[in-house]
Amino acid sequence: MIAKISDIAKYDGQEVTIQGWVANLRSSGKIVFLQLRDGSTGILQAVVSEKVSNKQVTYWKTVELLTIESSVVVNGKIRKESRAPGGFEMEVSDLRLVQRSVEFPIGKKEHGPEFLLDNRQLWLRSQRQVAILRVRDTIIWALREFFRKEGFVMTDTPILTPTSCEGTTTLFETEYFGEKAYLSQSGQLYLEALAMALGKVYDFGPTFRAEKSKTRRHLTEFWMLDAEMAFMDLSESITLQERMIVFVVKKVLAENKKELEILERDIKPLEKVAEGGFIRMTYDQALAELKKLGSDIKWGADLGNDDETILTKAYPKPIFVTHYPVEVKAFYMKPDPENPKTALCADLLAPEGYGEVIGGSQRIDDLKLLEQRLKEQKLPKKDFEWYLDLRRYGSVPHSGFGIGLERTVTWICGLKHVRESIPFPRMINRLTP
Amino acid sequence: MIAKISDIAKYDGQEVTIQGWVANLRSSGKIVFLQLRDGSTGILQAVVSEKVSNKQVTYWKTVELLTIESSVVVNGKIRKESRAPGGFEMEVSDLRLVQRSVEFPIGKKEHGPEFLLDNRQLWLRSQRQVAILRVRDTIIWALREFFRKEGFVMTDTPILTPTSCEGTTTLFETEYFGEKAYLSQSGQLYLEALAMALGKVYDFGPTFRAEKSKTRRHLTEFWMLDAEMAFMDLSESITLQERMIVFVVKKVLAENKKELEILERDIKPLEKVAEGGFIRMTYDQALAELKKLGSDIKWGADLGNDDETILTKAYPKPIFVTHYPVEVKAFYMKPDPENPKTALCADLLAPEGYGEVIGGSQRIDDLKLLEQRLKEQKLPKKDFEWYLDLRRYGSVPHSGFGIGLERTVTWICGLKHVRESIPFPRMINRLTP
Repeated sequence: MIAKISDIAKYDGQEVTIQGWVANLRSSGKIVFLQLRDGSTGILQAVVSEKVSNKQVTYWKTVELLTIESSVVVNGKIRKESRAPGGFEMEVSDLRLVQRSVEFPIGKKEHGPEFLLDNRQLWLRSQRQVAILRVRDTIIWALREFFRKEGFVMTDTPILTPTSCEGTTTLFETEYFGEKAYLSQSGQLYLEALAMALGKVYDFGPTFRAEKSKTRRHLTEFWMLDAEMAFMDLSESITLQERMIVFVVKKVLAENKKELEILERDIKPLEKVAEGGFIRMTYDQALAELKKLGSDIKWGADLGNDDETILTKAYPKPIFVTHYPVEVKAFYMKPDPENPKTALCADLLAPEGYGEVIGGSQRIDDLKLLEQRLKEQKLPKKDFEWYLDLRRYGSVPHSGFGIGLERTVTWICGLKHVRESIPFPRMINRLTP
Repeated sequence: MIAKISDIAKYDGQEVTIQGWVANLRSSGKIVFLQLRDGSTGILQAVVSEKVSNKQVTYWKTVELLTIESSVVVNGKIRKESRAPGGFEMEVSDLRLVQRSVEFPIGKKEHGPEFLLDNRQLWLRSQRQVAILRVRDTIIWALREFFRKEGFVMTDTPILTPTSCEGTTTLFETEYFGEKAYLSQSGQLYLEALAMALGKVYDFGPTFRAEKSKTRRHLTEFWMLDAEMAFMDLSESITLQERMIVFVVKKVLAENKKELEILERDIKPLEKVAEGGFIRMTYDQALAELKKLGSDIKWGADLGNDDETILTKAYPKPIFVTHYPVEVKAFYMKPDPENPKTALCADLLAPEGYGEVIGGSQRIDDLKLLEQRLKEQKLPKKDFEWYLDLRRYGSVPHSGFGIGLERTVTWICGLKHVRESIPFPRMINRLTP
């Protein structure tokens, strides 16, 4: 029977087959200890000992050929062994070498990030990278499960678009049969059209920013989930977002205990998040707080990375910062009727210094106001006629938000840099492998 | 209480609120019949009658303002009414106009496809489009649920890539900080690296082909799910694919009865598919069959659209066509050791004339052979060094496949053209809205 290493405890006392790779090996006279990996979480110690072999000659010849990352098919009995990683080991009775690996370039010594990124196709095999990708998978699944339970319809928005949504300076451009097309920076405008057709919708796809930023929070290609809800105001949207984050964090805590251990993630801050009760403060309150914490931010400026870091380190829960000045936010955000200098918007800042993971707002539902905002921002009206249609044909109050997947993975896994949160990161100096 | 129209039967006898739009209306003296839509499946008839109104004056003024696609909030009691669509109607007691729609451009008369596509943001509101998008959502969910149950890890592959996987003539190109980047045509090569790290993996994202084809099966931007399995051969992969298709079709039959009715989809052929027992034939057998059916296809040519149509119309089940000539398939497919002129590959052709929805193969796992194939296809070896690494460091037999989402949606919904299967289609002459 072919077993998975992550399930090995189930097979105590049984003879199983493992198909995998030699993550490490050491020899001690007539005993060889193999550390096997098979893609599931964890490592299995397989003990090759001369006396248990039933095919002694070929078997020892094979053992001598083994190298790190050689692919193997190994049979043997599983038994408890407290000294082995995971608490079980295999007493190998048969061993087949599938392919002998040449010397693996990623070893025990420390490598710089550029070397590891140059060899991303191999670096992915490390226990740490496997753990991150499994947590990423859980987060993606939990997000989709959440929206399905909440009655949303998943609707993909286009990547190739004729105009830009968030400004034109950071766009990737391509030739489209004689026209210019741009890679989407957000599906939001399209999602608004879909919300008018289907009520509550979300998309989840790659988005692109040709930003020259070289920070630990920036990728040029990253995945974003946008949600858009007809007949919903900002406050209801914030409540929904908190429910979503709590759902996701609980799911990761329930399903990825082993992976969080491998990542040495302190789970106490995550358990705090899973309790809910997120903090809500206006931009004005955030500014007052930031000044106390030593920032020199002035009213009218967006929160910088450093501001987000110091603010979120001061609180144990995620923080919704609401009512930013309209100038620092996108043209489609609805001004607060009680204070039109501020927008009905909210960013969610993740704790422990991680900062923004969600940006959202109530949208302008009035045609005249939206036309005026396009004019102020010098956006070409004709490119937005289809979007303006949503305010001509049965406009309704509606809100939405976007959550950045890689920033969420980075936060939940407790990573230092966003580059490890996606299989093949794309950054300003990185398009390969 | 705010109710959804799709759930209206639950509220028989109760007073509820519907937030939505006027899909249609007609007046008969002192009674006005509103056909309401709210984004869920179905239409609710709401009867506005002078005598039941408790706010008579303003209420009738509001009714007179109503137009098609006006947004409204309507309160009233739900009651059985066999003549109403869906079997229930609302006796309206209160009505609030949110926004009066200007004249809706999509009416009762027939519109050409270009007009509808130009107004896609509004066309999406039709019952038919809503039904298609809901089936699409179910298919996406079912695919992900299937792979999760099968122990796969979801791993996104990059869109921006330095090289091409399937040939260079149909690539969208963009400037990447001074380098050239291409939009991904398939995540497969990256997925192979991930399979060596995680065992069984899949991606699901947009892919791009700058093809000049103008057929009912072609989009320039479409969603594809790729799966890749370490230690799996072609035959096991085919079995997995059949299980996947059966799972998806069963899910749609269980969850989207109403939507399939709206689409007037004959479900008998789908029920046949849900039984499993797909047909398997080699390319040679397919050719013999096609010749009988009147095709003049010659050995060595790929199956054309017309060939796929006549072949699949001749069988009630999906057909796996295996062992195509290596020349018509991609460089990475493993030649059949028993007949190296053919590849260990399989395409799945959907019945009723729909044709190819899946393409898959066992991959070359031998370094030398893969290097030779790159050379034969004049692909620059240096761009593939990272991919060749997978055959240097613990190569294993592995297989995978890609399923095209829009073709699957088109088939399952029984559509004539792929353009309706995605919210905002991109075709050779279509980049807007």
